[in-house]
Amino acid sequence: MAVIRRLPKYHRYLGDLLDKDIQRISSKELSDIIGFTASQIRQDLNNFGGFGQQGYGYNVEALFNEIGKILGLDREYNAILIGAGNLGQAIANYSGFRKAGFEIKALFDANPKMIGLKIREFEILDSDDIENFIKNNKIDIAIMCIPKNGAQELANRLVNVGIKGIWNFAPIDLEVPQQVIVENVNLTESLFTLSYLMKEEQ
Amino acid sequence: MAVIRRLPKYHRYLGDLLDKDIQRISSKELSDIIGFTASQIRQDLNNFGGFGQQGYGYNVEALFNEIGKILGLDREYNAILIGAGNLGQAIANYSGFRKAGFEIKALFDANPKMIGLKIREFEILDSDDIENFIKNNKIDIAIMCIPKNGAQELANRLVNVGIKGIWNFAPIDLEVPQQVIVENVNLTESLFTLSYLMKEEQ
Repeated sequence: MAVIRRLPKYHRYLGDLLDKDIQRISSKELSDIIGFTASQIRQDLNNFGGFGQQGYGYNVEALFNEIGKILGLDREYNAILIGAGNLGQAIANYSGFRKAGFEIKALFDANPKMIGLKIREFEILDSDDIENFIKNNKIDIAIMCIPKNGAQELANRLVNVGIKGIWNFAPIDLEVPQQVIVENVNLTESLFTLSYLMKEEQ
Repeated sequence: MAVIRRLPKYHRYLGDLLDKDIQRISSKELSDIIGFTASQIRQDLNNFGGFGQQGYGYNVEALFNEIGKILGLDREYNAILIGAGNLGQAIANYSGFRKAGFEIKALFDANPKMIGLKIREFEILDSDDIENFIKNNKIDIAIMCIPKNGAQELANRLVNVGIKGIWNFAPIDLEVPQQVIVENVNLTESLFTLSYLMKEEQ
């Protein structure tokens, strides 16, 4: 799992290098930029098929594309976003996700005051219609930007209509069948890690 | 570091138990709720001073408070938030951080159209005034909700006026002196982890 957590970082740095038209890079140079050791980098990349050539370095574009494939970025994902508050709107407005192949197809909210409002090109839909929308629009991923209360019930509904992945911002560990993938973003846990490390530094 | 990443989760679950007025719990029961093994839990908590009593379980409130202390939650933190877009507003509006002792004292933005607008009790201030504000208001933490471009320059400015911690939402690895703590929230990396795991599940 630790390697997997590093792959998106490789992908990001390689994308930056491509933007700068850099076509070839050694593990030593990659190490200087990313901050992992060169031997860690060689080991990680060997794990996934050994992209480098001794004394020659890595082809940046080939490596970028290969890691993209490993990350499942060689396809498109249809997503819906549930909970159109500030956080949900921030995610809906972020163009980087679409560029990476994640297309948000609709926004949902349970609050009658929100339903019908427009966010970018989206009219906010009624949460009651989530099941029909998922079935009719081949939705792969649900982005849950709702509070803890009601999050498990919503996850159950999503699972029942065959959602494959949940990107969960609710501060709760969802119980789902094994074949459904949940990736949590827990902002409070991140903030508490910051305060812990600050305390240790004193 | 892995233990540290688990501590905020213990803290959250123990807080939930307290809300339900549960005063005592065994490592086995904790294991059923949190999902770590009972032996993992005993080992983690022993690391930090052995809170449990054989055959008696843990005192939920004492353990909650003790883990809070370890996480540095037994004090208050003054924070500023820079970048008052949707994400910044979502964070400024989240009452849970204040309850945990993190008080946002001001919002800043570089966009003249944003400066002067009100978000909750905050009038958005001009980013040019960040240094003065930090010096005059004993600010511990800066929350950076800005794009990648300009993030390192902003971090340099924050470091120069003595900020101790940065909660960074910009998709960039900031370079700061060792005594300054940076905790990153990288949403793209989280999303790519989701797509990777979904691909593996197919």
